[in-house]
Amino acid sequence: MAFSIFGMAVSPGIAIGRAQLVSHATLEVAQYQLRERDIPAEVERLDAAFAAVTAELDGLRAEATLPGTPAEIEAFVDLHAMILADPLLAEEPKTLIRERRCNAEWALVQQMSLLVAQFDEIDDAYLRERKHDIVQVVERVVKVLTGKPRKLVRRSRDEDLIIVAHDLSPADTIQFKSLRIGGFITDMGGATSHTAIVARSLAIPAVVGMHHARPLVQDDDLLIVDGSRGILIVDPDERVLAEYRIRKSALELERSKLKRLTTARSCTLDEKEVSLQANIELPQDVDQVKAVGADGVGLFRTEFLFMNRDELPDEDEQFEAYRSVARALGNKPVTIRTLDIGADKTARALRGSDRPAPNPALGLRAIRYCLAEPQIFLAQLRAILRASHYGRIRLLIPMLTHASEVDQTLALLEQAKVQLRQSRTKFDEGMEVGGMIEVPAAALAVGHFLQRLDFLSIGTNDLIQYTLAIDRTDETVAHLYDPLHPAVLRLIAQTIQAGQRAGRPVAVCGEMAGDPTFTRLLLGMGLRSFSMHPALLLEVKQQVVMADIQALTGKVSRLLRSDDPERIRELLGRLGEV
Amino acid sequence: MAFSIFGMAVSPGIAIGRAQLVSHATLEVAQYQLRERDIPAEVERLDAAFAAVTAELDGLRAEATLPGTPAEIEAFVDLHAMILADPLLAEEPKTLIRERRCNAEWALVQQMSLLVAQFDEIDDAYLRERKHDIVQVVERVVKVLTGKPRKLVRRSRDEDLIIVAHDLSPADTIQFKSLRIGGFITDMGGATSHTAIVARSLAIPAVVGMHHARPLVQDDDLLIVDGSRGILIVDPDERVLAEYRIRKSALELERSKLKRLTTARSCTLDEKEVSLQANIELPQDVDQVKAVGADGVGLFRTEFLFMNRDELPDEDEQFEAYRSVARALGNKPVTIRTLDIGADKTARALRGSDRPAPNPALGLRAIRYCLAEPQIFLAQLRAILRASHYGRIRLLIPMLTHASEVDQTLALLEQAKVQLRQSRTKFDEGMEVGGMIEVPAAALAVGHFLQRLDFLSIGTNDLIQYTLAIDRTDETVAHLYDPLHPAVLRLIAQTIQAGQRAGRPVAVCGEMAGDPTFTRLLLGMGLRSFSMHPALLLEVKQQVVMADIQALTGKVSRLLRSDDPERIRELLGRLGEV
Repeated sequence: MAFSIFGMAVSPGIAIGRAQLVSHATLEVAQYQLRERDIPAEVERLDAAFAAVTAELDGLRAEATLPGTPAEIEAFVDLHAMILADPLLAEEPKTLIRERRCNAEWALVQQMSLLVAQFDEIDDAYLRERKHDIVQVVERVVKVLTGKPRKLVRRSRDEDLIIVAHDLSPADTIQFKSLRIGGFITDMGGATSHTAIVARSLAIPAVVGMHHARPLVQDDDLLIVDGSRGILIVDPDERVLAEYRIRKSALELERSKLKRLTTARSCTLDEKEVSLQANIELPQDVDQVKAVGADGVGLFRTEFLFMNRDELPDEDEQFEAYRSVARALGNKPVTIRTLDIGADKTARALRGSDRPAPNPALGLRAIRYCLAEPQIFLAQLRAILRASHYGRIRLLIPMLTHASEVDQTLALLEQAKVQLRQSRTKFDEGMEVGGMIEVPAAALAVGHFLQRLDFLSIGTNDLIQYTLAIDRTDETVAHLYDPLHPAVLRLIAQTIQAGQRAGRPVAVCGEMAGDPTFTRLLLGMGLRSFSMHPALLLEVKQQVVMADIQALTGKVSRLLRSDDPERIRELLGRLGEV
Repeated sequence: MAFSIFGMAVSPGIAIGRAQLVSHATLEVAQYQLRERDIPAEVERLDAAFAAVTAELDGLRAEATLPGTPAEIEAFVDLHAMILADPLLAEEPKTLIRERRCNAEWALVQQMSLLVAQFDEIDDAYLRERKHDIVQVVERVVKVLTGKPRKLVRRSRDEDLIIVAHDLSPADTIQFKSLRIGGFITDMGGATSHTAIVARSLAIPAVVGMHHARPLVQDDDLLIVDGSRGILIVDPDERVLAEYRIRKSALELERSKLKRLTTARSCTLDEKEVSLQANIELPQDVDQVKAVGADGVGLFRTEFLFMNRDELPDEDEQFEAYRSVARALGNKPVTIRTLDIGADKTARALRGSDRPAPNPALGLRAIRYCLAEPQIFLAQLRAILRASHYGRIRLLIPMLTHASEVDQTLALLEQAKVQLRQSRTKFDEGMEVGGMIEVPAAALAVGHFLQRLDFLSIGTNDLIQYTLAIDRTDETVAHLYDPLHPAVLRLIAQTIQAGQRAGRPVAVCGEMAGDPTFTRLLLGMGLRSFSMHPALLLEVKQQVVMADIQALTGKVSRLLRSDDPERIRELLGRLGEV
């Protein structure tokens, strides 16, 4: 019988396929008594299971470095590997096996309960999260011990799999990358849950926060996931199925239409050229950059080189990575952002602080961190300079607040150049240096930065976060995050206009640049350079080629004068009518 | 033999007195074997020690609510009480006593080592902090068990005590409040350490970050603490002592001169009236407010009512507290700020979130929290309205970002008024409502708020924090916190001037208002209303009565046009020459 369940739409699109329940198997394992002589074998069985899961996590870690995998997944895999290696988990159950002559899975679950209880006692919200990680790790080991297979299998080539789960761990989601999953459904989660982030990055429709979908759905049920409206339809009747097949085709048609824009010139109806560039995280991402016909790389994040490893990447390794992108892009610009990482635990190889930052977003991050660790920074600057010989590289400094940060960076860059000249290493003497405007102070005192730099790039995500004092990854306040707050719009417009007056290019590389809803607004503010995830580029291009900047400019000025959020939304809607 | 040690000057002034070493006694306690029949007595001895420390902490908690005690001290006392009550600490050692027939202090330290080792294993920086708390609690119990007295004793009425410690726990510092301590010296700590915060709030000279003072100083050594320059002089010779006595007297003379300003009119040389009001945290603080002749209370923080308790204060309790201040101030204004607290663990009685906020400063705080908990908020609004009948109360809404937050607050206030009218409860129908400008978005779109509110108050601490994206309590970036960043100065000046144009009073109640270095700058921006800690009011008044606003205005405009931090500092210095 057909029925629908409503949840939170977190990744748009339509999927039609068969349910595949992902069970976080109950940890209610059987207990049985061993004969004395079987004890050594049981201990070995436990060791073997730990070894198997260690190998499993190693495999996941390798997959986690593939393009498109959110960086935080790697961090979670590392955390789980660390938990797995803890003697409290790996060794203590053996004592139980020996003393009580009990089976390995029971001993392990006992020890887990003990650890979880200890975490409960400490009565600290931060630790409760860690507790869940312990449970997830033990689940993995128990599955190996009880022989329940964890690997998912595609039942049919023709039908997509729809993953239905109570919740998905970051490690789970990696496995799905290779399986061509059609959609995700989870009972838990919100817009910023791992499932949501991964689904969006893989462009897979997803609905989360279902509360009771998993108990109501059975394996192989036919499902429709409407990731745009947040609906799951179970066992749909023919009429509904037919309607959704049509909508799905229409969406796919729309996508293939977009593909035709790949080679179109990126200019408006009134013939203004607009540069559409791509944000990338890994050298391999250049394939996608070329596939969508981007005008260059507007933001090459370099954090991937520093994540999930115990030692820092040396200068040569960095050089190779930067050069491969510069070469692949030929004469198109490649804008490399220097390390944008915090001293908190995001990268093991970096020297962290003793205590966690009370507010990491307001702490030692990005250029602040780099200037505090000049040797790490110098190695990166030399690697970027060396790569600049092989293409058109531009350097981008993240999170500027004080003019002195630019001065210090330029001094270090000069030092790196002197070193390279001494060793007769070639580099682009004219390499451009730009800065990210993402702290309100930098936008408000942009003159500082225009005097000192060749170009600017506005990071809207952080700029909005700080301007509104809203961390949008914090679900208790995410609803207050609003890119259309008049303060935000004015800061962005003022920065673009200050750049125009000073004759310095200004780009936007935050999420606003990749959202077609905002394309006309930004064009009307004077923006001529956008950088975004390559998957979003063609949709933005579609907006560009249909826009008439002359008509937009006046309307946008009017919009910027309004203090009223409702009125701003109304005027934004009308920009589409131009 | 005289010698000097240099550290970090964190609380200005000069102290001359005798060293009192505060020893965090070694936890190397003796182990001895008990006779079987002595075991029950030993268990009782342990229980008695726990009871004594529980009473000790209860006493500290009572002291912690006295005026002038930083709120975080109370939170630490609570944490220590919680640790003390944990069966892992209170019960487990008894098993050891019974099983090993060992003495109580040894059993306790064993169990502590076990717990600390477990914390170490989890390998998480956050937990390492908790570990230190466990050690501090155990130290307290061991001191009771071993009979080492913890109470400090003043040796002489004439000489001040100078506390010399490796580090001071927040609980330690409370004890000093009653002892008329002359100065603090610690080996650990920075500008935002507890010692520094407490010393400043008690106006006691302090030098921290000494590294090796404690091993070099002996009890009863004669010490000079120069809290302005960060110097400790041990066993000074007569010449140095004489010089410092003169400097100390000069400082004291300066202070007594300031006292004469108490009754002076607060107006500039060119006869502009300037309102100097006080920030308070507790109803008792009104004594100090009156003593310095403040023009009212510009900021009455109401968090004290919600801290350190398991249940929310009811409306009547709040009403009594607000009324007592309103009555005490007579016809002077009392500006009550509604609850400015986060959903993180700052107040037990408030419903917290399951997970800690990733960035509490960018999370569910202040008005955001209140609007999410309308019943708590309504009770406070009713209490404030009821108190408004007994004096001149004004309502102040903290951390505004969106205009809709004002609209929602005003709607709730109207609802509270309707309820009071129905019960024929008297209140001031014309009670003014103002808002705090402390989020950059609010300063940038201040028109929003001027339209809707009777007055504004600029909270410079948070405004600077968000504008620069710098958490100044984070010692890794505290050096980047700069009230003189041109972006900050412009935001403040623009807000003051927008208020003038709209005919709405604007005050500054952040730390800048209480810093005499900034008084002329703020006057030149057009500010006529300052609110600050009462201890700072007379120094600011001294600046006001010597200022000539006409001469300042042009100079400040010039300063505001500069983008160069060095130039801004130079121009600020010259304002003093007016």
